[in-house]
Amino acid sequence: MIRRLAAVSSAVLLFASAAQAQSVDRVALNGVIDQGFNHSEVMQTAAWLTDRIGGRLTNSPQMREAEQWTQQRFTDWGLSNVRAEGFEFGRGWSIVRSSARMTTPRPIDLRAIPVAWTPSTNGTVSGEVILAPITSADQFDAWRGKLAGKIVMLTAPTTGAEPTEPAFRRWTDEELSGRQAYSLPQTDPDAPERQLRGATADFPARLDAFLADEGAVAWVRMSQREGGLLHGTGYQYQVGQTPRLAGLELAAEDYRRLARLAKAGTVPTLELMSEVRFHDEDVNAYNVLADIPGTDRSGEYVMAGAHLDSWVASDGAVDNAAGSAVVMEAARILKALGVRPKRTIRFALWNAEEQGLLGSLAYVDRHVATRAPLSDPALAALPNNRTWRARWPVQPREGHADLVAYFNIDNGSGKIRGINAEGNVAAAPVLEQWLEPFASMGAGTVSLRPSGGTDHVYMQTVGIPGFQFIQDPLDYSSRLHHTSIDSYDHLRPDDLRQAAVVLAGILLSAANSDEPLPRMPLPTRPTASDPVGFPITN
Amino acid sequence: MIRRLAAVSSAVLLFASAAQAQSVDRVALNGVIDQGFNHSEVMQTAAWLTDRIGGRLTNSPQMREAEQWTQQRFTDWGLSNVRAEGFEFGRGWSIVRSSARMTTPRPIDLRAIPVAWTPSTNGTVSGEVILAPITSADQFDAWRGKLAGKIVMLTAPTTGAEPTEPAFRRWTDEELSGRQAYSLPQTDPDAPERQLRGATADFPARLDAFLADEGAVAWVRMSQREGGLLHGTGYQYQVGQTPRLAGLELAAEDYRRLARLAKAGTVPTLELMSEVRFHDEDVNAYNVLADIPGTDRSGEYVMAGAHLDSWVASDGAVDNAAGSAVVMEAARILKALGVRPKRTIRFALWNAEEQGLLGSLAYVDRHVATRAPLSDPALAALPNNRTWRARWPVQPREGHADLVAYFNIDNGSGKIRGINAEGNVAAAPVLEQWLEPFASMGAGTVSLRPSGGTDHVYMQTVGIPGFQFIQDPLDYSSRLHHTSIDSYDHLRPDDLRQAAVVLAGILLSAANSDEPLPRMPLPTRPTASDPVGFPITN
Repeated sequence: MIRRLAAVSSAVLLFASAAQAQSVDRVALNGVIDQGFNHSEVMQTAAWLTDRIGGRLTNSPQMREAEQWTQQRFTDWGLSNVRAEGFEFGRGWSIVRSSARMTTPRPIDLRAIPVAWTPSTNGTVSGEVILAPITSADQFDAWRGKLAGKIVMLTAPTTGAEPTEPAFRRWTDEELSGRQAYSLPQTDPDAPERQLRGATADFPARLDAFLADEGAVAWVRMSQREGGLLHGTGYQYQVGQTPRLAGLELAAEDYRRLARLAKAGTVPTLELMSEVRFHDEDVNAYNVLADIPGTDRSGEYVMAGAHLDSWVASDGAVDNAAGSAVVMEAARILKALGVRPKRTIRFALWNAEEQGLLGSLAYVDRHVATRAPLSDPALAALPNNRTWRARWPVQPREGHADLVAYFNIDNGSGKIRGINAEGNVAAAPVLEQWLEPFASMGAGTVSLRPSGGTDHVYMQTVGIPGFQFIQDPLDYSSRLHHTSIDSYDHLRPDDLRQAAVVLAGILLSAANSDEPLPRMPLPTRPTASDPVGFPITN
Repeated sequence: MIRRLAAVSSAVLLFASAAQAQSVDRVALNGVIDQGFNHSEVMQTAAWLTDRIGGRLTNSPQMREAEQWTQQRFTDWGLSNVRAEGFEFGRGWSIVRSSARMTTPRPIDLRAIPVAWTPSTNGTVSGEVILAPITSADQFDAWRGKLAGKIVMLTAPTTGAEPTEPAFRRWTDEELSGRQAYSLPQTDPDAPERQLRGATADFPARLDAFLADEGAVAWVRMSQREGGLLHGTGYQYQVGQTPRLAGLELAAEDYRRLARLAKAGTVPTLELMSEVRFHDEDVNAYNVLADIPGTDRSGEYVMAGAHLDSWVASDGAVDNAAGSAVVMEAARILKALGVRPKRTIRFALWNAEEQGLLGSLAYVDRHVATRAPLSDPALAALPNNRTWRARWPVQPREGHADLVAYFNIDNGSGKIRGINAEGNVAAAPVLEQWLEPFASMGAGTVSLRPSGGTDHVYMQTVGIPGFQFIQDPLDYSSRLHHTSIDSYDHLRPDDLRQAAVVLAGILLSAANSDEPLPRMPLPTRPTASDPVGFPITN
């Protein structure tokens, strides 16, 4: 820890001359620290989101409850302009109950979860399994006439791997130092065209129709996780896309047992039951937004966000009640202190992140910038996220200049160890200054590396400085992410309190800084970095 | 690996002068190695025991099937005197199906398994939970009148621990060297009296009666495992001991959620269903035994054993289809080679190990030695395992001298790294010689440490040289032992093949050695090693 502090201090000195002067109000930060550690409510917030509300699939009753409850909390804490902003999403879906059993050659209960947005079975259905790992439509002919009355096993079972690394860990100083190296952008000029080709892919729908037409009873797939864990993720949520046939995911151990028995000649019979509900009363999903209004620069704003939606194999705790609770707690801390920042501070709880960052994309498209439409009417009718990166140029909206910085938190329950500056070398020294007061809490690292996969990504695609925090990994990726044990049990109170303190502090410094955070140039269509090399294949 | 080989070779040289001359027929061992690696059937055996038969709780239909199937395999392979030896056990019990759901404040399926030997629920039952962690009969009064219509949560929930060590690992050379140190026996003169006091304990039965009399709907407990794993172990198997009230075990994450909600004032309601069967057609359990007859010393025998019974949260793979398959494979290898050993080689598949090493104890008591009865008629009527260590003197039976050595395998799927000589310094150099041909397979360590907890223990209590192998730990203790993921998936084919080769080789050397293996003196009642010190408390 001492070594890291020294390294950070040197970096600050080096950067100080190059950076704009940035005011960090350390007296105010003392208030943030006191409120965040001695009067924390972050675990109460997390407990309500997880234990009480539970898994929050977009447009499910649980997510509707979460949208309402979080707005009420923001209102109770005195935030301004508390609101839910809708965007078109599709059907809600929720599980009432489900079960799976092997009945022959012997009885055993199996671990199962309905695949999201698949329909109910007709009560309890049963049938022999058949292993049919169909991966493309040109395999349909080979299976025609063989699937009637069967429960179709769609995954080719793989041998599992045993866990030779600790599931739970924290970044070492050495690993954090390694993250500080700049990563060269990898320009792939074919990527946009690949996205457009993928945008019209419809294999899941064709497979469902084929299985249903063939008279299959249901389909099952193998969990991608070992150790009996389930996730149940599925993506056919749009109106009109609902599959005809029920699909369940089985624990890897249960699935492989069926496959082995079938291969050994003792074809198992299963009983499956999936009772689910669809929710079509409102096909819009809603982002929840709340502000602390600025004073002399109130037209500008800084923003923190986390996605409130989750999968439903458990209670969506580390993904991402944790980040949502941290964002809400940062808002509570700053309101409790009565801060009056120069710029507005906006808090966002995104929706439909799990289906493709749809909530943050909707916000960007509405308030920040859009992209030129495609001329092909079929492509132009597709959802934004299917074509966004293939559409040029970026067309800034009126509010583009007002959004000074966006901070995202979506890496689980681990404390903040620093921030990914996403290649923005002009912002890095400023971020260093804002983080320095929290270096002794382990949060001093500024990495030039890019990070992806969550709600700061679409900010970056339109030139907004959007950053994701570096958090200790804990057991987020190794076993909790989307799984049937992502519950409150695996949240770390000390880590979440630290994260809320750091986030509140950063937001305050960003809202009060003399100058807006430096930006990258507005993205334009990239050229191939190696135009005469071999084609880049994916 | 080279370093270990050198160490073992030195040890052999050092020991050679002290030990009796022992013949190790390396040509025969080449045959064992070829048969065990190039013509192995160990995984086929393990697959049938796990996938096809499944969890093998003593006296369940599955264990009956395993008793029959293993005898048939021994017979098919040409072993002699294949037989099942019965001993009084109690009721069989098996799960037909079970389920658990929380219905309020929100619907979610819970992971649950009936606790072994508890009765069925009356269809699906429901009720509010009440957290009542009753640990002794003097707490009954405090709970009287509060439990009617409730589902009683009997475990005080603890905070879970996160896995900071790898679940899967192998012994390092350094760890194996550390095991070679002699451990001083810890003599506790009070232990026999403590055992007798414990032998009459009946709290589980009194608690069941209290809960039933109070009108509780059912009880639930928390799994001792994290990560959604279940085990469902229970011990009230004797005739007349069956509880009146159904009990289910819930995954730790599910149990703690209920406890937190109840504490926060939103008392959950559950629906529970447990459908189980009792099997009383035959209350005897059976050890399966098979021999390769000896030649010129056929009155003497060496013996290998593993327990065939298991718990039923999964398929009893690493505990202990693995060891059973290795013992069976060693028998197959030796028969396939047509060996004609001096001494008889006996193979044992024990029953009811999981309820207290009952099968191996029954064998010892019948064939090897008994212990003096207790004069108190109430104590004398108790099962052997409740009073055995408190009864002196040991009374050898006629066959006591004939059993030359017993080798046990019950530490999962890991390959053999050596053997625990259990403080027998005279046997250690002989065991070194027998293992030396397998040192290059990693099996060269002889440890003087004692090991306990499985079927060699009662052999030792009557002075028989009984040994447990050292096996690589893998993820046996960390996550597989007794749990809902103890299935074929987690068996390691290379490890089991090696274990069968090493076991077959050791048995052959032991059966053909010029002299019987040196023994420890016959146990007699120990005296306190520190008679004027403070009493040893437990």
